[in-house]
Amino acid sequence: MRTERLAAFSDGVLAIIITIMVLEMKPPHGADLATLASVAPVFVSYILSFIYVAIYWNNHHHLLHTPSHVSGLVLWANMHLLFWLSLFPFATAWMGENHFAPLPTALYGGVLLAAAVAYYLLQLAILRGEGPQAKLARALGRDLKGKISPLIYLAAIPLAFVSPWIAGALYVAVALMWLVPDKRIEKVLGE
Amino acid sequence: MRTERLAAFSDGVLAIIITIMVLEMKPPHGADLATLASVAPVFVSYILSFIYVAIYWNNHHHLLHTPSHVSGLVLWANMHLLFWLSLFPFATAWMGENHFAPLPTALYGGVLLAAAVAYYLLQLAILRGEGPQAKLARALGRDLKGKISPLIYLAAIPLAFVSPWIAGALYVAVALMWLVPDKRIEKVLGE
Amino acid sequence: MRTERLAAFSDGVLAIIITIMVLEMKPPHGADLATLASVAPVFVSYILSFIYVAIYWNNHHHLLHTPSHVSGLVLWANMHLLFWLSLFPFATAWMGENHFAPLPTALYGGVLLAAAVAYYLLQLAILRGEGPQAKLARALGRDLKGKISPLIYLAAIPLAFVSPWIAGALYVAVALMWLVPDKRIEKVLGE
Amino acid sequence: MRTERLAAFSDGVLAIIITIMVLEMKPPHGADLATLASVAPVFVSYILSFIYVAIYWNNHHHLLHTPSHVSGLVLWANMHLLFWLSLFPFATAWMGENHFAPLPTALYGGVLLAAAVAYYLLQLAILRGEGPQAKLARALGRDLKGKISPLIYLAAIPLAFVSPWIAGALYVAVALMWLVPDKRIEKVLGE
Repeated sequence: MRTERLAAFSDGVLAIIITIMVLEMKPPHGADLATLASVAPVFVSYILSFIYVAIYWNNHHHLLHTPSHVSGLVLWANMHLLFWLSLFPFATAWMGENHFAPLPTALYGGVLLAAAVAYYLLQLAILRGEGPQAKLARALGRDLKGKISPLIYLAAIPLAFVSPWIAGALYVAVALMWLVPDKRIEKVLGE
Repeated sequence: MRTERLAAFSDGVLAIIITIMVLEMKPPHGADLATLASVAPVFVSYILSFIYVAIYWNNHHHLLHTPSHVSGLVLWANMHLLFWLSLFPFATAWMGENHFAPLPTALYGGVLLAAAVAYYLLQLAILRGEGPQAKLARALGRDLKGKISPLIYLAAIPLAFVSPWIAGALYVAVALMWLVPDKRIEKVLGE
Repeated sequence: MRTERLAAFSDGVLAIIITIMVLEMKPPHGADLATLASVAPVFVSYILSFIYVAIYWNNHHHLLHTPSHVSGLVLWANMHLLFWLSLFPFATAWMGENHFAPLPTALYGGVLLAAAVAYYLLQLAILRGEGPQAKLARALGRDLKGKISPLIYLAAIPLAFVSPWIAGALYVAVALMWLVPDKRIEKVLGE
Repeated sequence: MRTERLAAFSDGVLAIIITIMVLEMKPPHGADLATLASVAPVFVSYILSFIYVAIYWNNHHHLLHTPSHVSGLVLWANMHLLFWLSLFPFATAWMGENHFAPLPTALYGGVLLAAAVAYYLLQLAILRGEGPQAKLARALGRDLKGKISPLIYLAAIPLAFVSPWIAGALYVAVALMWLVPDKRIEKVLGE
């Protein structure tokens, strides 16, 4: 299968995920400020998830930029990633509607963790087809961010039961870390 | 009509189907483990349907890879397939929300069966335009999987009233059978 | 603006319309046959609308096949058409949920009528840019189907208050009339 | 990143936003005229938002027409714009369901204002990469419409608490002002 088609399908799914998340932010009954304020937690969790999906879209693009064809392994590794990303709307809404209660906040971290692991497996699947000398392998280098992120999520999940604010702060911190686009890949590809 | 446009439209519809299915998994009221567990049956049926739509997307790609133009017959055979696939979110949610009760589980099998028949008719429509010597005809060969799947669904539908678990196991078995991408087509196209 | 981009955007909107319509078919509470039967009217109206959107997608493709660039007039004529098509999910659900009551059935006809008029205006806008000698002008010829359809809808709307079944039969009849793809355009383009 | 891919992703998101907005117009229970009339405010706000998203789609196309590659800055400025546009369905539904009450009408203006500012920042980000001599810079010229619109929204927000009708009239006025596609850019590009 040509990479273009896989990228176009993934783009479509990501565009839909990022947009339907907003459907979980139901217009409240009532037109006063207190009613609007009740939507605030869902809004905050929506912002966080919007940024996460945008980051995934951006990095996913860099990842699929290198190979011209994809194997069945890469195809299913990609579907596996899309599966976990498709759970963002659910996890986001459940966390927001319950005002960042411990369990929903931990579950949100679990979905983030699963997506990060799926992304890592997708990298492995692409690298396997390209060999260790490939552009992508060099571009990724030690891939510090990719290795640290799942560890932070792993720490955040139990910490959500201590205080959801600690977990939330860790999710925000990882998002900020990734907001910078992957210069490494850009640099090597630019050579 | 050029095949590309039909493929792009079908890709769009499949990307939307696979993503909006998750909207049927409503965030439950309450933030404890028992509440989360109540979503489990919907989640399990979502996983199964996600895999089925992914399989259809993958095989559909192979199918439309061969012709460069499509006739009106192929166009409507494709729309017919998309129609049945568009019922996946409904059938998935109804089965999940009713905890795999007999009738919803049988209906799910009915939608799977209708989609499989529609896929078979789409193959016939494409083959008709290409002739028996065409690449696709050789690639499909005896098409064992395509012929066995509807028979299994046909068996699963009445069995759902004996035990939904048997039907469910059969749906999972067919999905696993298809998870392997269609090597036959890949092989002949690669020649 | 290049036609391709307008066509791609329109395709996207049509793919979403045809797919989200199914979200209006809510999974009912209960797992018995009577419960399932209660969904039947919504299902029937969904089938009808699915076919209508598919017809629009198909004919829209033929229409935009001829020009290579589009003017601002064509762009907004196209948006106007998409607006009315975007009301299909609402009109479909309202008609289905009220079991084809007179007013919802008439409103459905009103949306069909508005979409047909918008399609006609889009044709005029494209023809205006192409001149009377253009391929499309010759292909459309007298455009009998395009002129008869709005008249039938116009008749069906008051008839819905006499008997919704008459109106429904007329909607089905027009759909059947259009199911045949537009041979005229195909023929002239093929020359 | 190539501009095409960013444009395709943005197109997808805009196509979804414009279409899912209609999902907020819930089919009412009951089949009489009074019931239908109760949907009217939501319908009116839907029309307004449909036009706004269509305007953004059209102008966004002109904006991304000029650069061939986009920097990380442009990418995130674009995501920032999409974020505010993704809030249109929520703001539209809340305003419509509350029959243009002051606070929802003001909030709608706030989302319009934020989107306008985000669009302006996106322009700056693109211009920064292109330099002051670039086509786009000349095409935009003094960009009167782009500078007046946010000022009008800024005035409309407090005026919504005096009378929502004044605010609504201002929103409509800005939409009408923009309905004319950006001749300036078209002219310079056409040279």
